[in-house]
Amino acid sequence: MTPDFSLPNYLAGQRELIDRALAAYFCEETREYKTICAAARYSLLSGGKRIRPVLCLAAAEAVGGIAGEVMPAACALEMIHTYSLIHDDLPAMDNDDYRRGKLTSHKVFGEDMAVLAGDALLTEAFHILTDREKMPGMSPDRLLTVASEIAAAAGYRGMVGGQALDVRAEGKKGDLADLYTIHRHKTGALLRISLRAGAILAGADKDALAALSAYGERLGIAFQIADDILNVEGDSELMGKKTGSDAALGKVTFPQLLGIDASRARAAELVTEAVSALEGFDDKAAPLRALARYTLDRKS
Amino acid sequence: MTPDFSLPNYLAGQRELIDRALAAYFCEETREYKTICAAARYSLLSGGKRIRPVLCLAAAEAVGGIAGEVMPAACALEMIHTYSLIHDDLPAMDNDDYRRGKLTSHKVFGEDMAVLAGDALLTEAFHILTDREKMPGMSPDRLLTVASEIAAAAGYRGMVGGQALDVRAEGKKGDLADLYTIHRHKTGALLRISLRAGAILAGADKDALAALSAYGERLGIAFQIADDILNVEGDSELMGKKTGSDAALGKVTFPQLLGIDASRARAAELVTEAVSALEGFDDKAAPLRALARYTLDRKS
Repeated sequence: MTPDFSLPNYLAGQRELIDRALAAYFCEETREYKTICAAARYSLLSGGKRIRPVLCLAAAEAVGGIAGEVMPAACALEMIHTYSLIHDDLPAMDNDDYRRGKLTSHKVFGEDMAVLAGDALLTEAFHILTDREKMPGMSPDRLLTVASEIAAAAGYRGMVGGQALDVRAEGKKGDLADLYTIHRHKTGALLRISLRAGAILAGADKDALAALSAYGERLGIAFQIADDILNVEGDSELMGKKTGSDAALGKVTFPQLLGIDASRARAAELVTEAVSALEGFDDKAAPLRALARYTLDRKS
Repeated sequence: MTPDFSLPNYLAGQRELIDRALAAYFCEETREYKTICAAARYSLLSGGKRIRPVLCLAAAEAVGGIAGEVMPAACALEMIHTYSLIHDDLPAMDNDDYRRGKLTSHKVFGEDMAVLAGDALLTEAFHILTDREKMPGMSPDRLLTVASEIAAAAGYRGMVGGQALDVRAEGKKGDLADLYTIHRHKTGALLRISLRAGAILAGADKDALAALSAYGERLGIAFQIADDILNVEGDSELMGKKTGSDAALGKVTFPQLLGIDASRARAAELVTEAVSALEGFDDKAAPLRALARYTLDRKS
């Protein structure tokens, strides 16, 4: 990693690798699986930011591993994220028509197929994570640990639990503690585990794992605060979806509870803490440090 | 296994064990997870027939294993089955108000929470399957094989794929080949893997696994034919849900394509083949043989 490390170039390169790897899945478009695979691919290959796989690969490299060797796990994390977006966008949930600048899954394929496309993506993620042929160099022990941690982070103790809290919090009063709880589960758990998954597969020791977890926890909340701010102030063209939707749904957000300026200050604090957590790492952690700082500047 | 083996007694005993094991999951009803756990438990503990876990335990015993050691995997299979029912019952899918004699999940908890309860059950199934502490005696290799096979059987190549075919087939003409394809995926794949999972975890050899797979494939189709017949002729009180719903939805079924008598004859043939596949097994396979025959007689 040279001192003139460029995050935009790094992200563009990683995303290209990730998109190419993702495109290799759900390709068994025989007559039998045509519609469900098309629906899964539509959402999976719609040009997201790929934050979770980027974190997974960067964590593997930060501890001295090889990014390519953990790519299947990185793809599985993006599948889990994508399934959660498809289900969140459903009429019974957030009822969003657009996502990443494209019609949402249920607007294109119908609600029934959108539910199933999400189910298929979630299930395939665990198929990849437990398939020794996908990551042939990995010990069965590491694969099990990673699959188990991801399942815990994605399920009712994590992402799904956070989403359940979120849908029930809509239109009700909530305080800052509630909001942290929701986001620690809804988005934080999967971001944190994305880092841990890459690091565990790359053979990280206990201290490195703890540091990456601490980094991930801060990053997760900072990321969510930035998301909330973008929902108020962002450019809907750049975002590829409506802004102001949180307020319309009566959602409790950081800007609403803290105001925009204090939200921004809190996010900056969290980013500083996240970067500090990586003190013990060398230049191979440069992408993770840059990614944390980028949280404050992103426009979409 | 004595000659006076009683299937009803056997099933009642197994179901009690399975229900007790299932009740131990989703019990972390802290304030944080209360609603999502209540929704997951509501459907999971609503007294289903527990066919998949029964098959998993019976397969483990048929190859000389100990049922209790594979119980977590058996519970995971029931979680996957339950999630699929919750999502199938949604208004956007089959729009069923009743299941197992109780209101469906979305009627009780709302559509949003029903989607999430299904997601939570599916994810938790893979958490259980990859958690070494749940099945401490098992080698990581076996656990990975079972988790991977279950993911393949539950996802787009199996159950979800079959459901996708099914929702798109509604109201269209279909022939017998299409119908077999749908059911081999929609119900057959998970029944087959239930047997394989129990047997693999119990250390079955290749021949035993192949025989159990052949048994499972026949049983799966016979089971579906019996289901279709019950949907036409069954007692809705015993079934705990509306009968005649397939016809109302314009679904292609075995009775519609073959007639009731030929459907019954085909199911009987399949049961004979299923039992023949177990020729090489001793009396420890008596429950599996009895279960196959029971397919023809069940009333709900």
